[in-house]
Amino acid sequence: MDWTLGKTCATLQLEFQGPAELPLRRVTGLDDLAPGTVAFVNKAEALQDLEPAADCVLVVPEGSDYSGCALIFSSHPLSDHVRLARLLHPGPQVSGEIHPAAVLGSRVKIGKNVTIDANVVIGDDVSIGNDCVIRPGSVIMEGCDIGQGCLFYPNVSIREYCSVGNRVVLHNNVSIGADGYGYFYRDGMHNKIPQIGTVRIDDDVEVGASSCIDRARFSVTHIGEGTKIDNLVQIGHNVRIGKHCILVAGVAIAGSTVLGDGCILAGQVGIIDHITLGNRVRVLAKAAVLDSFPEDDLVLAGNPARPARLWQRMLSRTQQLDSLFKRVNALEKQK
Amino acid sequence: MDWTLGKTCATLQLEFQGPAELPLRRVTGLDDLAPGTVAFVNKAEALQDLEPAADCVLVVPEGSDYSGCALIFSSHPLSDHVRLARLLHPGPQVSGEIHPAAVLGSRVKIGKNVTIDANVVIGDDVSIGNDCVIRPGSVIMEGCDIGQGCLFYPNVSIREYCSVGNRVVLHNNVSIGADGYGYFYRDGMHNKIPQIGTVRIDDDVEVGASSCIDRARFSVTHIGEGTKIDNLVQIGHNVRIGKHCILVAGVAIAGSTVLGDGCILAGQVGIIDHITLGNRVRVLAKAAVLDSFPEDDLVLAGNPARPARLWQRMLSRTQQLDSLFKRVNALEKQK
Amino acid sequence: MDWTLGKTCATLQLEFQGPAELPLRRVTGLDDLAPGTVAFVNKAEALQDLEPAADCVLVVPEGSDYSGCALIFSSHPLSDHVRLARLLHPGPQVSGEIHPAAVLGSRVKIGKNVTIDANVVIGDDVSIGNDCVIRPGSVIMEGCDIGQGCLFYPNVSIREYCSVGNRVVLHNNVSIGADGYGYFYRDGMHNKIPQIGTVRIDDDVEVGASSCIDRARFSVTHIGEGTKIDNLVQIGHNVRIGKHCILVAGVAIAGSTVLGDGCILAGQVGIIDHITLGNRVRVLAKAAVLDSFPEDDLVLAGNPARPARLWQRMLSRTQQLDSLFKRVNALEKQK
Repeated sequence: MDWTLGKTCATLQLEFQGPAELPLRRVTGLDDLAPGTVAFVNKAEALQDLEPAADCVLVVPEGSDYSGCALIFSSHPLSDHVRLARLLHPGPQVSGEIHPAAVLGSRVKIGKNVTIDANVVIGDDVSIGNDCVIRPGSVIMEGCDIGQGCLFYPNVSIREYCSVGNRVVLHNNVSIGADGYGYFYRDGMHNKIPQIGTVRIDDDVEVGASSCIDRARFSVTHIGEGTKIDNLVQIGHNVRIGKHCILVAGVAIAGSTVLGDGCILAGQVGIIDHITLGNRVRVLAKAAVLDSFPEDDLVLAGNPARPARLWQRMLSRTQQLDSLFKRVNALEKQK
Repeated sequence: MDWTLGKTCATLQLEFQGPAELPLRRVTGLDDLAPGTVAFVNKAEALQDLEPAADCVLVVPEGSDYSGCALIFSSHPLSDHVRLARLLHPGPQVSGEIHPAAVLGSRVKIGKNVTIDANVVIGDDVSIGNDCVIRPGSVIMEGCDIGQGCLFYPNVSIREYCSVGNRVVLHNNVSIGADGYGYFYRDGMHNKIPQIGTVRIDDDVEVGASSCIDRARFSVTHIGEGTKIDNLVQIGHNVRIGKHCILVAGVAIAGSTVLGDGCILAGQVGIIDHITLGNRVRVLAKAAVLDSFPEDDLVLAGNPARPARLWQRMLSRTQQLDSLFKRVNALEKQK
Repeated sequence: MDWTLGKTCATLQLEFQGPAELPLRRVTGLDDLAPGTVAFVNKAEALQDLEPAADCVLVVPEGSDYSGCALIFSSHPLSDHVRLARLLHPGPQVSGEIHPAAVLGSRVKIGKNVTIDANVVIGDDVSIGNDCVIRPGSVIMEGCDIGQGCLFYPNVSIREYCSVGNRVVLHNNVSIGADGYGYFYRDGMHNKIPQIGTVRIDDDVEVGASSCIDRARFSVTHIGEGTKIDNLVQIGHNVRIGKHCILVAGVAIAGSTVLGDGCILAGQVGIIDHITLGNRVRVLAKAAVLDSFPEDDLVLAGNPARPARLWQRMLSRTQQLDSLFKRVNALEKQK
């Protein structure tokens, strides 16, 4: 579809300034303006030194004053820029059909308007809600229950009896429900403890490429509503992640650990097993959480992780060690 | 199948106390008791403060005395609870057949009672032993030799000429035999060194989801019998892992490193190339092993890794630095 | 094909010493010599203490003098040993055909001599250059553009509209073009920012098993020519990696970070978002880069990363802390 400034703003119900017939081709950032692009600024002050840009559009805060290009006025420019992105870039087509090269088991329930691409394999007794899209090569094993509006990218695999809420996005190669890592040592070997639990993923969760969420030993490994997980993240068995958490790439969380709501784990953070973190706890990159911190709103850092200001203090002290050694040398000479 | 307390104990040859007709539905933990569940306690003392639980069963040490629910007596409660779990939760069905949507190459040898699911691809000259189960989307390239009783979950891939022992479990998305990471710099670029070796995985190894074991430059990358590897673990080319090792999620081991038997690497440990570790060496979470430690039974920690007590000492010293700076300040004022 | 010393050296145009009819079976290392093997030494001195090895061949520097086995003379023994490896070990066969169990979309353009194995899925409007090999289970979504001579191993997946140069190797389970990790927090939840950019991978790049390169928010995530990426590496959206870089296993690079040419990131290094590194910057294992270092030729280490000599100094100082505490104790007693 061809979008113009006027048609776009009518669709999104936004005010604009400029030629209604200006064609809009793609959204972009301020550093890549070209005719037909739409960028945004969050604050009107950002417009002060901006070069005029012919045939471009900026989404700007309401009341902004700028004459260098066309404007769209918004109470939340980033948010409306995202709405524009969805309009101008609807993404690849979905067929709304089950490809003949998909393989479906017995008693599979498929909702309306579901796309199942080639070489997808769906086990017996799986249920898939309306408007789901399952990309090629994905595997959903028996008895899984998938909500509405989910989007699974290529080569996702979900083991038996797991449960996935609505609007869940799983990126390439995600593994849901692999066995938790549990053994007991006896007779000179590690004996496997069956992992008979499952995984439950709530609504609006997103899981990044090649991330792994293991099934529980008993009961469930649980990912709370709205939590967003980046690539190559490991979630061990029986872990419980609260709502609206952020887990950045490379994070690893060992078994039975519990995170509150709104926690943020930066890249490559590790948390050992059976730890409890409160709500809105923030853990800085690469920290190793070896103790529970059940209080809310903490910021943790370091290995072992402790409140970030203590870690900062320790770091700054170690950086002053050279001078401390010199001072002690001087004191020793004075005696 | 419907299991009762009496039938279960007859099958497993265990003594019990309670109504033989009590139905058993699932195994669980002590925190989730409900009618029909079976939990366990390792020590009789754990029974002292336990609330009575109607229609539940506990696996308890022989000689335990408890009247709050039915009991099963065991010389090793965890172990017998695992046997119960296998009985009550046999897991998803296997067909024992080759699905018509699997693709097999030429001269493939398949043992008895082998399940090959839809969209599996098996290359030429592959051999697969009795009782193996290969889940959808897995790929085994030419000339691989797979033992008996193996279980490969969805989307596993094994490159050409690799060898896998008996009862090996590979979880979703495992990569076996990808090229080792080897180049030489010449003429302004990194030139690839062909990785013509293979991978050999011995009996009873388990490899977690999305873990990678690279093929050797020459000869083999070797995983010893009974070693258990968690998710997202990297094993470089020519690495040799001993028997019955434990490699927790996020571990990365660089090329040609050698581990003894019974080593335990905690989460996110890294080991550089050409390192030797002795038997039963334990490396604590996130440590960076930059030197060889050929002695047996060491515990290592830190970056660079050193014996854990030295690392602990160093940590506690750095945590006392504030006071040390104050003491030096005081000494300087006295002069 | 059967190779002899004479035929091999004629093909590769190398001088040799020994029986021309000696059969060559495989290349190997010095530690695994057996009849029919070919190893190499980079320096003539390495020959001094070498045991004679019957029916073996060594690739040696020109002018070397050794009588313990047959010799091939080379101006760059490693490089010629690699040429020998390619000759003796051509690797598994490729069919040069499209397998009937592959699924191709509409308007797909396939070059000459392309192998597409079983259960590969190619989306609409994809273009694939001459001499590519695409192994089973791989998925290339719509509108992707793949150059010549690429080799994609099993279960690789590439999202829509990405661009891959010539001679690019992608190992098992690589994910190219998954959504970048971008959200904005509003109304109590993390709202997804559409990732409408793509990925561009230049010529001669290699990407290791289960590594992930995310698509850009706008524009492209870019991997420069000749860069070699190991297994389980994460490249965030909008990252730009220069030419001929080395990224070892477990590295994670967050969004919009820019690396110069010839950088080397050792294992498990993490770099936060919006960082700039100069050319030929080397980062030691496990370092956490939290600041930009735009200068060329730096060596960085530690968390937070700083020039390696500062980190070494800090480390050695912390290892002397015990003695410093004792010295301060002694000073205090003297007062």
